[in-house]
Amino acid sequence: MEDRVMMAHGSGGKLSHELVSRCFVGKLNNAWLARMDDSAVLETPGRLAFTTDSYVVTPLFFPGGDIGKLAVCGTVNDLSMSGAIPLYLSLAFIIEEGLVVSELEKIVDSIQRAAQEAGVSVVTGDTKVVQRGKADGLFINTAGIGHIPEGVNISGSNANAGDAVIISGTIGEHGMTIMAQREGLRFSGGLASDCVPLNSLVSEMLKACSDIHCMRDPTRGGVATTLNEIATQSHVGITIEDAAVPVRPPVRSMCELLGLDPLYIANEGKLLAFVPADRANALLNTMRRHKYGKDAAIVGWVTDERPGRVILRTRLGTSRILAMLSGDILPRIC
Amino acid sequence: MEDRVMMAHGSGGKLSHELVSRCFVGKLNNAWLARMDDSAVLETPGRLAFTTDSYVVTPLFFPGGDIGKLAVCGTVNDLSMSGAIPLYLSLAFIIEEGLVVSELEKIVDSIQRAAQEAGVSVVTGDTKVVQRGKADGLFINTAGIGHIPEGVNISGSNANAGDAVIISGTIGEHGMTIMAQREGLRFSGGLASDCVPLNSLVSEMLKACSDIHCMRDPTRGGVATTLNEIATQSHVGITIEDAAVPVRPPVRSMCELLGLDPLYIANEGKLLAFVPADRANALLNTMRRHKYGKDAAIVGWVTDERPGRVILRTRLGTSRILAMLSGDILPRIC
Repeated sequence: MEDRVMMAHGSGGKLSHELVSRCFVGKLNNAWLARMDDSAVLETPGRLAFTTDSYVVTPLFFPGGDIGKLAVCGTVNDLSMSGAIPLYLSLAFIIEEGLVVSELEKIVDSIQRAAQEAGVSVVTGDTKVVQRGKADGLFINTAGIGHIPEGVNISGSNANAGDAVIISGTIGEHGMTIMAQREGLRFSGGLASDCVPLNSLVSEMLKACSDIHCMRDPTRGGVATTLNEIATQSHVGITIEDAAVPVRPPVRSMCELLGLDPLYIANEGKLLAFVPADRANALLNTMRRHKYGKDAAIVGWVTDERPGRVILRTRLGTSRILAMLSGDILPRIC
Repeated sequence: MEDRVMMAHGSGGKLSHELVSRCFVGKLNNAWLARMDDSAVLETPGRLAFTTDSYVVTPLFFPGGDIGKLAVCGTVNDLSMSGAIPLYLSLAFIIEEGLVVSELEKIVDSIQRAAQEAGVSVVTGDTKVVQRGKADGLFINTAGIGHIPEGVNISGSNANAGDAVIISGTIGEHGMTIMAQREGLRFSGGLASDCVPLNSLVSEMLKACSDIHCMRDPTRGGVATTLNEIATQSHVGITIEDAAVPVRPPVRSMCELLGLDPLYIANEGKLLAFVPADRANALLNTMRRHKYGKDAAIVGWVTDERPGRVILRTRLGTSRILAMLSGDILPRIC
């Protein structure tokens, strides 16, 4: 039997990592891809960041956003996570024949609003249409270019023992909103995607603390997967206090009902930051003054024990390994 | 009845232009998009070009190339048409669940070879998977960044009355190859896609002639559509001598049999260049010494009559308007 791509290859979890390592990074071997960061740092005058993401979320519209807002925020956030100031986006549509034009227009309006909030310009684009049944309404790709200021050096490889781990707010809202929409769940009262552009928050953070080691937005695969990526890239251990992780009540109760762990649920407007412990409280105060960082919290720390592992200290006082997402809880979340 | 997106909206022809103008350029209003060039010229130190394209060609493999080679060459060529030296690509996959991994690997190998030939690096990427039946095997998006050298100023808006129009080689091979593959036509002897990266040809051209006004690669919609785009952007008339346009015999005979005009058939390794008439022969000689310009020919000239119109002088000595592609001869050609 031949190997086939499975849904879990696109989950952002373990199988995704294997596919990317084996099939793409291995073959397209270069120093940029090997870093496994969200953005490529380009050695041109002025240091640019350049990143890309395709968006295949279903449904196209959901409380708190739509595929267009997601396509802008996702790429703006990837750029921001390298400390870059997002400047330019490309925008490419793959449209299924039969998509209602007014829906497309609503999505483009939403792109425009999100781009305006983030202060980025969509500077180039492309449109393809495929036959009915050969796509699913609309797929969007955005690539982005940002400028990395002098002195900023942020990477998933830079976490150090002693760093504090900060989350910028409550987790799991994007994923649970999509799930509730898709499954027609009625008990999701007040739940909305957290999808927002994080560049203004990051800009405040960099002003307050020039010494941020890593930042990453925990999207597909959730906080648990992102922490595992950084533990691996930086060859460090990470310990997380479950009780310190902020989760809103509707997410908590939906997760309990469905047997899911919020640490694996996707976010689209949150970031994890790793900073020296003695800078953490000052940074936290700065973040909490920003509208997208109000619920920021210190959730853990970096150790030199068990490099590559993430340990969760539970509310019961026990500890267990928090693994990377394996399989796919919820396909097409972004 | 609501407006719906039709296949022709993705053809690169008239309906594509209407959709892009109305729905995207109108709403995402900025100076870069308004130029309607293939690449955005970014005002950063060193002038960068940045472009994107998604590739949805079917079948994924065809004589002369595959979707991977196409995804590199297409974006390299778009950058080259602005006079930029292509440097960096992003690469994003949307994969239909069930795609055979060995096919994906063949495609990545092909991407690598094409990137190597073009001298570009794939520096960032993304992978999404959608359920069986929600895509068609594989879609690829590439975005690209290139460096525009000092003094180069090439745009679809720069054609002047008196310019000669040069085509870099024989036309229609990519489109007719895909059609032959898809329809299982047996009489396509020796036909292969012309898909190649044109940046080394462009580099030789710029060395030989610093005064190239426009360049564009006639992909979807063919030479006729590209000429119409430039006539509109530059507010000039363009006259083309049908007999001067090089067409290989298998393309000629397939087109005759199927009632198609090679001027509307897609190319993936050809370019149109507009240069002052007194520089045309020297440039032509340079092009003919390059492996991808062997069959280059002067095919027409720019006038100040009937701005926005392209006139075809036929083999019979008559003249007719050569319109932009309307409808869609062959969907999913790239």
